[in-house]
Amino acid sequence: MNFSSKLIEEAVEAFASLPSIGKKTALRLVLHLISQQEETSEQFAEAIVKMRKNIKSCKVCHNISDASTCNICVDVRRDRSLVCIVESIRDVMAIEDTAQYKGLYHVLGGVISPIEGISPTDLNIDSLVERVEKGEIKEVIMAISPTIEGDTTIFYISKKLKAHNVGVSTIARGISFGGELEYADELTLGRSIVARTPYQKE
Amino acid sequence: MNFSSKLIEEAVEAFASLPSIGKKTALRLVLHLISQQEETSEQFAEAIVKMRKNIKSCKVCHNISDASTCNICVDVRRDRSLVCIVESIRDVMAIEDTAQYKGLYHVLGGVISPIEGISPTDLNIDSLVERVEKGEIKEVIMAISPTIEGDTTIFYISKKLKAHNVGVSTIARGISFGGELEYADELTLGRSIVARTPYQKE
Repeated sequence: MNFSSKLIEEAVEAFASLPSIGKKTALRLVLHLISQQEETSEQFAEAIVKMRKNIKSCKVCHNISDASTCNICVDVRRDRSLVCIVESIRDVMAIEDTAQYKGLYHVLGGVISPIEGISPTDLNIDSLVERVEKGEIKEVIMAISPTIEGDTTIFYISKKLKAHNVGVSTIARGISFGGELEYADELTLGRSIVARTPYQKE
Repeated sequence: MNFSSKLIEEAVEAFASLPSIGKKTALRLVLHLISQQEETSEQFAEAIVKMRKNIKSCKVCHNISDASTCNICVDVRRDRSLVCIVESIRDVMAIEDTAQYKGLYHVLGGVISPIEGISPTDLNIDSLVERVEKGEIKEVIMAISPTIEGDTTIFYISKKLKAHNVGVSTIARGISFGGELEYADELTLGRSIVARTPYQKE
């Protein structure tokens, strides 16, 4: 694309460096900012710089946080005997959005993947074991993607926690609510029959 | 969405205020910036603020420009007797990308639209007439969208320029190259038959 302006080109490159934003979209965003007041761009830029500068990782659960301990960890109304183990902060948000869970979290920061060179020491597993050692936690829930890497991670963590008096569960797997049987993959469908649950009238 | 962080929320709102970016995409962009070095966010923000602060409108053609006169208007290799009239700076970029045009431009900043309250005085028409009055321009090419508003604008400008010794043309309209006849709209197809051109071997 021919920008006829070095300033535009640099701003377009900046936007286009973000994931899922191509040059055409980047240009539309830049032209939008040009059509707005100068303050709009300044406020936009400030929000991003301020966020990046001040955002912290919770020292307990490794969730993103404004303070050294996150909102969820300091919330006294939450059940401190339950810890949900997730891969990323996005999973915390997804589970929080369901409003079905009132325990705490532990963000691993990924899953064990020898192919990508991610070993257990790269993940927040030691800090999880330390949390469990304190004795307050009664159950850890593995909310980790059902992939080979995810299953390896679940297996590794459950072995690490064996010596401690803590229950380990995984989130239920099966056919999605609203999902149609014929479109489900064989593995999910097969396992959902093996792991059938007694029928309960709601 | 539950962000559990005021900083994240503000940054997501900032991105989501841009056109075609929803909250989910905004969150992905914010999490991407968090995963990068702090300098990445600073450079990103700086490129935008710098661009918005220093970007100018060319005093001749109203194209966006780094200086008071744009690259195209100062380029001595361009044909100063030809001026292409377009609605927006994006149209300038689109025509420049074709590499088929070597004249100058004039950006109107929109089209006459009584419904949206855009009158001829809101557009850069007076400055176009002034440019034409200087006598250097031999032809103006109307590269304006073929809508009712666009046609009104073309009619208005051609009337304004009637007193001056300048040719007025519009860009060719017809079936797109690679377009299939059966999918063309009736108006375009009908007019393309009326406005047929002699066959030329290329």
